[in-house]
Amino acid sequence: MSSTALPQPEPMTGLPSRVTVYEVGPRDGLQNEKSTVPTQVKAEFIRRLIDAGLETVETTSFVHPKWVPQLADASELLADLDEAGRSPLRPVLVPNERGLDRAMEAEVEAVAIFGSATETFAQKNLGRSREESVEMFAPVVKRAQDAGMWVRAYVSMCFGDPWEGPVPVDRVADACAELMDLGCDQLSVGDTIGTGTPGHVEALLAALEKRGVGVDRVGVHFHDTYGQALSNTLTALRAGVGVVDASTGGLGGCPYAKSATGNLATEDLVWMLNGAGVETGLDLDKLVATSVWMAEQLGKPSASRVVKALSGA
Amino acid sequence: MSSTALPQPEPMTGLPSRVTVYEVGPRDGLQNEKSTVPTQVKAEFIRRLIDAGLETVETTSFVHPKWVPQLADASELLADLDEAGRSPLRPVLVPNERGLDRAMEAEVEAVAIFGSATETFAQKNLGRSREESVEMFAPVVKRAQDAGMWVRAYVSMCFGDPWEGPVPVDRVADACAELMDLGCDQLSVGDTIGTGTPGHVEALLAALEKRGVGVDRVGVHFHDTYGQALSNTLTALRAGVGVVDASTGGLGGCPYAKSATGNLATEDLVWMLNGAGVETGLDLDKLVATSVWMAEQLGKPSASRVVKALSGA
Repeated sequence: MSSTALPQPEPMTGLPSRVTVYEVGPRDGLQNEKSTVPTQVKAEFIRRLIDAGLETVETTSFVHPKWVPQLADASELLADLDEAGRSPLRPVLVPNERGLDRAMEAEVEAVAIFGSATETFAQKNLGRSREESVEMFAPVVKRAQDAGMWVRAYVSMCFGDPWEGPVPVDRVADACAELMDLGCDQLSVGDTIGTGTPGHVEALLAALEKRGVGVDRVGVHFHDTYGQALSNTLTALRAGVGVVDASTGGLGGCPYAKSATGNLATEDLVWMLNGAGVETGLDLDKLVATSVWMAEQLGKPSASRVVKALSGA
Repeated sequence: MSSTALPQPEPMTGLPSRVTVYEVGPRDGLQNEKSTVPTQVKAEFIRRLIDAGLETVETTSFVHPKWVPQLADASELLADLDEAGRSPLRPVLVPNERGLDRAMEAEVEAVAIFGSATETFAQKNLGRSREESVEMFAPVVKRAQDAGMWVRAYVSMCFGDPWEGPVPVDRVADACAELMDLGCDQLSVGDTIGTGTPGHVEALLAALEKRGVGVDRVGVHFHDTYGQALSNTLTALRAGVGVVDASTGGLGGCPYAKSATGNLATEDLVWMLNGAGVETGLDLDKLVATSVWMAEQLGKPSASRVVKALSGA
């Protein structure tokens, strides 16, 4: 495919002029890949992403290695990254106060916590009730903010839950608002199992607005398990959302579905945004080259359709 | 994945209450698969699609077997299908008057012609200039309509062209209108190489409207080569389009890209429409079962993300 086939920029009605891509490949992507990548490869991955124009990159996680062995090298990685890992634009995931301690030791300047919209997933993933998990996060957020850190709140299972089925939007909005009320700077609404659809996205964003969490504080996090990630993203952008989580190369699986399809691929998102004349500041060719390189490291092809089309993978 | 994870129906603003899925798997899908499927398997495929609720199914093509050997058995297939192949809802592709003759011999009641938005593709695919191709189609459409047949006009390369790059929307609208002016009942706007994006879809539909081809006569035909098919479809539906081409299981490759990704998968479309509360009359479980069965026939997994997620393929 020659570069003459690049999409024709046609400004689209109702979209923001600029979108922030929040890159989750190094953390959410790699933690859901079967193979574990060497620390140096992770560091090079992150440097290549930054070089491709990605400003916001979640670098790693201080979850206990027993749960996420793929990211057991968080401290070493941050030492390797040095300056590149210390910015309000380079968050790390922290599950609790112990994780926050380690993040502080590593001198990172932004953290993300990880809550649940449903009771079942809170029990299974956090080992406590939803209410107890909010209590657990309260001192994490407070201490992080007191230390001048930027704080993001992920909420999982905001659309469907593998045990509970579709989750009512008002219940999700309440769960999100409880975390935001702790003082978080940004919410990431996660469709962890990828079952959400555009109408559901509209409804949830409206419910969040009603609970006082406006679109200016909301990022969206879609998985492409059912092929809906980009349509859902388009719907969120039309509703005023300006931050979209994506994973370069579509890295990451879905731990709660048999399908191997994971996060929305950064490249597929950028293709759409480039076509709509929405600025992202990203260099698509560099992203694709990075995904081709990472596919070699992982020994499996990229899940991104744009990467496949442009690289012939 | 349990069925409790089915999407929560949330009516979406600005969508039609009902969408017609125009199934292209047996024709556009199978003609772009490497392996050729036995006639009996094709017939069973079509019967299963009809049983899953698909009313409009393009069954085959009377293009010369030299060009499309996969569909060389068109007459035999239609004989096998018998009544099921004779309805205004069961079009066959005809490239010229000779093809129309064969379609008439087979007593089909609907045909589709296949034009090009670009000069280069007309030369390469039709072996003549765009203008000459319109002249060639004129008697095909006239004779078909005189015989009481329903006529659809496909137009290829309506967004990008592998040789010419992005195609200006006014030029595409002119090319489409010329075919519609011959008296065709429906237009299918094709993104043959899959590079189109939502803003481009909006712009093209507006250009068509200006040329007198309103959305009530337009179907959209997207390929998922760059992951844009469903977002583009959503955009077209919001603009008032009510007919969407799709291929069960995502059958079909892209002959003009190295990528193997083909047509929008019917299941992925239905998942979105079910979620948005848009009626299609389709049974998703039956479609998925059909794709699993067809994947066995072809010896390759379905490209549909919904099929993969629900079947664990």
